[in-house]
Amino acid sequence: MERAEKLQVTRADFMGSLNNDIKPAFGTNQEDYSSYVMNGIIKWGDPVTHVLDDGELLVQQTKNSDRTPLVAVLLEGPPHSGKTALAAKIAEDSQFPFIKICSPDKMIGNSEISKCQAIKKVFDDAYKSQLSCVVVDDIERLLDYVPIGPRFSNLVLQALLVLLKKPPPKGRKLLIIGTTSRKDVLQEMEMLDAFSTTIHVPNISTGEQLVDALELLGSFTDKERASIAQQLKGKRVWIGIKKLLVLIEMSLQMDPDYRVIKFMTLLRDEGADRSL
Amino acid sequence: MERAEKLQVTRADFMGSLNNDIKPAFGTNQEDYSSYVMNGIIKWGDPVTHVLDDGELLVQQTKNSDRTPLVAVLLEGPPHSGKTALAAKIAEDSQFPFIKICSPDKMIGNSEISKCQAIKKVFDDAYKSQLSCVVVDDIERLLDYVPIGPRFSNLVLQALLVLLKKPPPKGRKLLIIGTTSRKDVLQEMEMLDAFSTTIHVPNISTGEQLVDALELLGSFTDKERASIAQQLKGKRVWIGIKKLLVLIEMSLQMDPDYRVIKFMTLLRDEGADRSL
Amino acid sequence: MERAEKLQVTRADFMGSLNNDIKPAFGTNQEDYSSYVMNGIIKWGDPVTHVLDDGELLVQQTKNSDRTPLVAVLLEGPPHSGKTALAAKIAEDSQFPFIKICSPDKMIGNSEISKCQAIKKVFDDAYKSQLSCVVVDDIERLLDYVPIGPRFSNLVLQALLVLLKKPPPKGRKLLIIGTTSRKDVLQEMEMLDAFSTTIHVPNISTGEQLVDALELLGSFTDKERASIAQQLKGKRVWIGIKKLLVLIEMSLQMDPDYRVIKFMTLLRDEGADRSL
Amino acid sequence: MERAEKLQVTRADFMGSLNNDIKPAFGTNQEDYSSYVMNGIIKWGDPVTHVLDDGELLVQQTKNSDRTPLVAVLLEGPPHSGKTALAAKIAEDSQFPFIKICSPDKMIGNSEISKCQAIKKVFDDAYKSQLSCVVVDDIERLLDYVPIGPRFSNLVLQALLVLLKKPPPKGRKLLIIGTTSRKDVLQEMEMLDAFSTTIHVPNISTGEQLVDALELLGSFTDKERASIAQQLKGKRVWIGIKKLLVLIEMSLQMDPDYRVIKFMTLLRDEGADRSL
Amino acid sequence: MERAEKLQVTRADFMGSLNNDIKPAFGTNQEDYSSYVMNGIIKWGDPVTHVLDDGELLVQQTKNSDRTPLVAVLLEGPPHSGKTALAAKIAEDSQFPFIKICSPDKMIGNSEISKCQAIKKVFDDAYKSQLSCVVVDDIERLLDYVPIGPRFSNLVLQALLVLLKKPPPKGRKLLIIGTTSRKDVLQEMEMLDAFSTTIHVPNISTGEQLVDALELLGSFTDKERASIAQQLKGKRVWIGIKKLLVLIEMSLQMDPDYRVIKFMTLLRDEGADRSL
Amino acid sequence: MERAEKLQVTRADFMGSLNNDIKPAFGTNQEDYSSYVMNGIIKWGDPVTHVLDDGELLVQQTKNSDRTPLVAVLLEGPPHSGKTALAAKIAEDSQFPFIKICSPDKMIGNSEISKCQAIKKVFDDAYKSQLSCVVVDDIERLLDYVPIGPRFSNLVLQALLVLLKKPPPKGRKLLIIGTTSRKDVLQEMEMLDAFSTTIHVPNISTGEQLVDALELLGSFTDKERASIAQQLKGKRVWIGIKKLLVLIEMSLQMDPDYRVIKFMTLLRDEGADRSL
Repeated sequence: MERAEKLQVTRADFMGSLNNDIKPAFGTNQEDYSSYVMNGIIKWGDPVTHVLDDGELLVQQTKNSDRTPLVAVLLEGPPHSGKTALAAKIAEDSQFPFIKICSPDKMIGNSEISKCQAIKKVFDDAYKSQLSCVVVDDIERLLDYVPIGPRFSNLVLQALLVLLKKPPPKGRKLLIIGTTSRKDVLQEMEMLDAFSTTIHVPNISTGEQLVDALELLGSFTDKERASIAQQLKGKRVWIGIKKLLVLIEMSLQMDPDYRVIKFMTLLRDEGADRSL
Repeated sequence: MERAEKLQVTRADFMGSLNNDIKPAFGTNQEDYSSYVMNGIIKWGDPVTHVLDDGELLVQQTKNSDRTPLVAVLLEGPPHSGKTALAAKIAEDSQFPFIKICSPDKMIGNSEISKCQAIKKVFDDAYKSQLSCVVVDDIERLLDYVPIGPRFSNLVLQALLVLLKKPPPKGRKLLIIGTTSRKDVLQEMEMLDAFSTTIHVPNISTGEQLVDALELLGSFTDKERASIAQQLKGKRVWIGIKKLLVLIEMSLQMDPDYRVIKFMTLLRDEGADRSL
Repeated sequence: MERAEKLQVTRADFMGSLNNDIKPAFGTNQEDYSSYVMNGIIKWGDPVTHVLDDGELLVQQTKNSDRTPLVAVLLEGPPHSGKTALAAKIAEDSQFPFIKICSPDKMIGNSEISKCQAIKKVFDDAYKSQLSCVVVDDIERLLDYVPIGPRFSNLVLQALLVLLKKPPPKGRKLLIIGTTSRKDVLQEMEMLDAFSTTIHVPNISTGEQLVDALELLGSFTDKERASIAQQLKGKRVWIGIKKLLVLIEMSLQMDPDYRVIKFMTLLRDEGADRSL
Repeated sequence: MERAEKLQVTRADFMGSLNNDIKPAFGTNQEDYSSYVMNGIIKWGDPVTHVLDDGELLVQQTKNSDRTPLVAVLLEGPPHSGKTALAAKIAEDSQFPFIKICSPDKMIGNSEISKCQAIKKVFDDAYKSQLSCVVVDDIERLLDYVPIGPRFSNLVLQALLVLLKKPPPKGRKLLIIGTTSRKDVLQEMEMLDAFSTTIHVPNISTGEQLVDALELLGSFTDKERASIAQQLKGKRVWIGIKKLLVLIEMSLQMDPDYRVIKFMTLLRDEGADRSL
Repeated sequence: MERAEKLQVTRADFMGSLNNDIKPAFGTNQEDYSSYVMNGIIKWGDPVTHVLDDGELLVQQTKNSDRTPLVAVLLEGPPHSGKTALAAKIAEDSQFPFIKICSPDKMIGNSEISKCQAIKKVFDDAYKSQLSCVVVDDIERLLDYVPIGPRFSNLVLQALLVLLKKPPPKGRKLLIIGTTSRKDVLQEMEMLDAFSTTIHVPNISTGEQLVDALELLGSFTDKERASIAQQLKGKRVWIGIKKLLVLIEMSLQMDPDYRVIKFMTLLRDEGADRSL
Repeated sequence: MERAEKLQVTRADFMGSLNNDIKPAFGTNQEDYSSYVMNGIIKWGDPVTHVLDDGELLVQQTKNSDRTPLVAVLLEGPPHSGKTALAAKIAEDSQFPFIKICSPDKMIGNSEISKCQAIKKVFDDAYKSQLSCVVVDDIERLLDYVPIGPRFSNLVLQALLVLLKKPPPKGRKLLIIGTTSRKDVLQEMEMLDAFSTTIHVPNISTGEQLVDALELLGSFTDKERASIAQQLKGKRVWIGIKKLLVLIEMSLQMDPDYRVIKFMTLLRDEGADRSL
């Protein structure tokens, strides 16, 4: 009899489950969110606001449409362009009660099977909330993709292909945000078909955008920025916002007199200066 | 002696088995059925009724023919064309006492062996009923198929190849309905030979069919639909009914003034407008 | 002492073994045989009787020749041509005390190793009888063969290659009948060399043979058959007897007025009418 | 103390081991030998005696030479040419105290590892006798070789490559006789280098040799043989002795009047008559 | 109660952990460091000092920049050019409290999974210190890379790809120094993108640099070095510092009269003398 | 307390370990050495003495140089040229206290992992002695290399690549002697880089060298050798010393009158006589 009581599910268990198992991921775990949006969203130009606007529209569709309780969007763009930060931002801004990020850095060295289980667990948790958002970050890394071969985990791929198309239980709604820098590979894997739509995240591509980014970041003195702006005026560049940050910080280790020169050199070495 | 009695099969066991193990799948589990036919069958044109008629004919053959107690049909067509919903509809309409859907979304992350066992279990259950229908949904996903390589589970393939040709026990009848968007791949795998026949499920291909679909779905106002109809009049389009639904719902998030424009833009982006 | 007695092999054990382990497979298990020859052998023309005659000759060689106690024959021909039924018929007609069919439908989802063991068990049982016949049915399925790759179970292949050439123990005789629709593949695998001889099982190839088959099956009315005969007179066709049966049964679901038309349409869709 | 005594090796253990573990294989197991030389050695021409003479020379070298305590010879030739029987005959005639045949038909369905262990066990046993002969029969089958791929067991290959070159312990002598019908494959695997020498076993290649074989086998009446001899006189043929036997036995099932005709037909069907 | 106390974490445990688990690797384990920098850093020319200067700059960035708490640099250059020694030197000179080298020679024969775990353990330890440096030595060996195929451990690759981009926890900083002689392969694996920057470690390429190296090493007499310098004056050479050391030591085993001749011969045999 | 004492390492344990674990391999196990140098080293010409001289030089470098405590040399040459015997001879002549041969014939049928462990054990033992020599014999066999594919054990390869470059602990010295007949393959695997140097072991290539070998072996009578010498005078031959021995011993089984003829025939069949 005592044993049976132990097995009985009580209101306490129910509340415990609500508080722990399916608690809003970011709401209670700001550190996790901030690790993906470490230096904030730098709105260096229209392309960034467009991504955020399109994201907002899909958040609305998820909330409002009864006919499409599942909305899946893919953020795709070059490495270092800030896709993960934008995905985390859209998720955070949705204010959905359940938000979770499914990221390869929590699965280092895991077997294919335990990766599948971890991913499935995130979705099973999401299905318990009425309104959920799951970020599937860095899909080619989740797939253990490498272009030599190519090789990848077909087990994880197949799990994602099914999860991206499986509607949540009746009455529940789910927004899935994927990120990738290898849209071509996902195409070949027939994964693009499984997304409702795709949003492109571009690199900084003009000198003006780059200088705006420097200003927003507060890097360099006004004079230094003016010098850089003059050198890049009207020129085409090609660099991700995350890579730009690394080059800035490297330059700042130099003697103040050499910081601009170092920065321009690093930019050129990186192949970011397309006007040459 | 007591032990022996426990092992004895009684009428109670028999009734229990009838009620649980081999109960009609959809009859008692409407939620399952409705998840596959979420927004009903939209009869946007003759191609849809043809599919349903052909399905009905095969249901009759299964019931009536003693020489072909096993009938296996493949529904094939492009992604988002609604194959699964049509298969579920044909199965539901047959009113066979045993109906079961064998779907990849119940086997996420399963090993090849446990997938085989799950599939075999569905068929073994079906063999116990006098008249059964098994839907083998999204065959390329059941096979873990990916075009890179290509890779797929040969274990599951071989199991399906045998099950598609194995007659049910004497006196039992079985209708198998498969669905796929990769008929070419199943051909290469020599699986087409194992089906008795094949039914093609097409995309919406004329502007008129598309407008009929909008009307049946009750999307947009009459005026909006008139505007869309005028723009698409006499034009060739190419879009699956499920994809159409997603585009409609996205458009509906816009300000009423921009809904038709957004819809036409999404249609064009999707490559669905073939007249350009 | 008691224990030792338990281990002693008595006449009862011997008789039990005779009755159970190595009992004639078909003799006591008519249902099994009939599942492979469901609609009887339809002798639609000379090619069918030739196959049965050649089979009978090999049955005689197995019985009579002391120098070739092992005779292995391969029945090969297109899918749906009735190879398995003919193999079962030859085996049944031999009236050998031990007859067993080794078929993939008993090994669904089995591992390579357990397939090997199951096959080996059949042969080990056969070796215990003085005169045995083993049907190795649908060899490419036993091998888990798929043309993509190609892939197949080398473990099962090697087991078959050895078993096809291994003579039974002194004083025992064994007839092996294999069936395949991929003679070319077995050739490539160097398996043809392991068979003593090969018998070709053809499709129905003339309109006359087809009409004879309809008559033997008792399908359609005399008038309907006359109409079909007229349409097919002198024409070349290409269809297996098993496929023909499916087309007939489908046609019979139609309203009597449309049955012949439907049948002729199905024949054409199937590519069976070679005169066009 | 009692335990220690149990572990003590006594003369009884020694004698037991001599009698069981390393007893001469063929000497005590005539049935095994006769299963490999079922119908005796048919000396249908010089090529057969040459093989036996060369074998005898290598037997002498193994016995007499202290500098080459390991002699490894490969018998290679087309399928059905009687290589295994000749290898067994050479081994039997050597009258070495330890003779063992390492054959794939004892390892059906074994894993690669247990095959290796079985092969190694045969050699370990051979190393215990002063003068041993090991027949490694049908090497491509031991290797699980299939030309598609090609695939084979590298584990077994590597084990054989080492065993073929590893000298027996000081004072012991070992003759290894391998057989293969795929000398080209062993060449590619760099296994030929591991053999001391190679002996070619040919097919019957002239009508005269074939008629001599018929006479030695006592098949057909004198008159029938005369008829066959006349038809084959001066013609080139190409058939292995084992295949010839099968064709003869098939022919003998016919009515006496048709036996010669049947035999000549089978010969032609088999592609053995090269004069056409 | 006693048990509970045993489980309590006390200050003693904390101090023990500090002293053992995450103690500075080189600081307390000079033997380990010296095994990687066995013969000191030989500054045979500007290229060597440039590498050390660039390394120092990245050490400063790691310490000072709050926006890039993770800095990852790749030292790449030909085999035997001393990459590992330079990486160890930069790490040692940083005087970070946690320094650890992740080297394949500690993982011989380990499975892929245990390699991953060992690598992950190094990083997990590093994350516990405020300022850490991890040397990931000989990356192609950690990956079990071999150009035939090519083959490599994708599990280890994926783990590294994630670890190279994963920022340390808030408030912690991490410098990763990788070494490789196959920059092209890492490029193909898309690993270069994961490093913040790359430093090239060159071979000795002029006769003057080579003679400087001999002088710094104190090898040969002044007269011998003069002879060598004259022979190499103005010539192009191509040899790694580690290979040079081997050639010197081999030459020194010769009779003093032949040492210079031997050295020049070895240099030529090695292909190091590019002026011919 | 008693338990603790049992765990205490005493002088007795130390002496036991010295006597057993790391005892000089050949010094106490002459039988092992002699199995690799069965018929002694036949100095049939300058090439043989050059190999031994170069080996001696490397032995000296290992002993004397503090800067290169690890010396790794590869003996490479055609099959049957006697590489293993020469490696064993150099090792034996070094009189190092620890000498061990790492040979594939001790690892037949072992898994990749247990091969790695066995190899690592040999090196771990070597590291315990101040002056050690490890012979890594027949590297392509240790790697389970087969040219079809090619296939090989990457696990063993990676272990060897690391062990060949890992210096012994401070104060210890190690000479590694590898042997291979596939230098090209090791090159492709990037293993050559891991050796300090390479020594070529050639075949007998002139008639004079061959006759010298016959004389040293004491094979044939003086008159017979004179006859052979005359036939081979000034001719080019190409045969390994080990193969030559096999041909001699085969010839010696013939009647004395035919021995020289047989020998010359075998030489020609072997392709060793390059003058034709």
